[in-house]
Amino acid sequence: MKIYGDIQSGNCYKIKLLCSLLEIEHEWVHIDIIAGDTSNTEFLEKNPNGKIPLLELGIGKYLSESNAILNYLAAGSELLPTDTFELAKVQQWQFFEQYSHEPYIAVARFIARYLGLPKERKEEYDAKQAGGHKALAVMEQQLSTTPYLAGELLTTADISLYGYTHVAHEGGFDLKEYPSVLAWINRIQKNQHYIGML
Amino acid sequence: MKIYGDIQSGNCYKIKLLCSLLEIEHEWVHIDIIAGDTSNTEFLEKNPNGKIPLLELGIGKYLSESNAILNYLAAGSELLPTDTFELAKVQQWQFFEQYSHEPYIAVARFIARYLGLPKERKEEYDAKQAGGHKALAVMEQQLSTTPYLAGELLTTADISLYGYTHVAHEGGFDLKEYPSVLAWINRIQKNQHYIGML
Repeated sequence: MKIYGDIQSGNCYKIKLLCSLLEIEHEWVHIDIIAGDTSNTEFLEKNPNGKIPLLELGIGKYLSESNAILNYLAAGSELLPTDTFELAKVQQWQFFEQYSHEPYIAVARFIARYLGLPKERKEEYDAKQAGGHKALAVMEQQLSTTPYLAGELLTTADISLYGYTHVAHEGGFDLKEYPSVLAWINRIQKNQHYIGML
Repeated sequence: MKIYGDIQSGNCYKIKLLCSLLEIEHEWVHIDIIAGDTSNTEFLEKNPNGKIPLLELGIGKYLSESNAILNYLAAGSELLPTDTFELAKVQQWQFFEQYSHEPYIAVARFIARYLGLPKERKEEYDAKQAGGHKALAVMEQQLSTTPYLAGELLTTADISLYGYTHVAHEGGFDLKEYPSVLAWINRIQKNQHYIGML
């Protein structure tokens, strides 16, 4: 099993973290987006959408989209509920992550951390702040009532949201405003098999 | 079972179409976003993220995010595979839809159709075209090799992508460039229990 990714990307790190928590053996193939590794013909044959992470399960058998990969790898483990409604709640948080969280928090982080907050992207960076804070407030509300996003137990929904939330300060988001989110981050980091992004 | 939504929204229409295909009885509660129905206290108690569609299964039991709702309602039916990899492929296309398709095609359609393409949004509308065409090209590549997105059978992945693809022309996207996508639209519309958006 090969995973194509860049550990500095929250979307890729999610997979690395899950593999560590579940002790899943894999070969990690480093991909450098800025060097064009995702836009060459060879990679586009593997994933026509030209994005990482990408899971390779055999010749011609690929799976893309970080959250789909997480749920595939976690199937049958304690990290993915089998009850239909609980499983739907996990997916609810994962779609929330891709639509209402990542496009604000991950993009603001990318502009600040990787591009060095250049003048011509400052307006876009500023525009990302409101959406990011809205997403964090939705998480705070849930995490003030349950220890994990989908309820009492750690699931792939938490791994999905943890990816960019725990480095949100790199995109200008002060997590001190969200005490339940900070407690949840701390809870995840205490896991025996936890590994950090670096 | 209540569904809060607006049939003109592709994300809401997906649920309506699935309910028709699977003959699922439900009460539809019309929500008017522009009138502020999703931002009042009563609605935010149901969905703190303030978005439709929203599924109500009982007192305090809610599910949001269109694609999570689709998979919940389709569980156990022929529209959702049980094989782990096939199920992951369905989710791959659904996350693709929310990240790489909807933010371009649905937003361009909203600006053109609902706002009447005002001068101050023209630049944003134009900027959405490249991303939308990229998403349509990824769909075209898959649909030129299999009749449905996840393979041989109609799944919730098709319903997710059908929502905004079949009205993409309202956002300025000419589907004549994508013959396999057009054939797929035609294939879905021939379903015995198909219902249109209007």
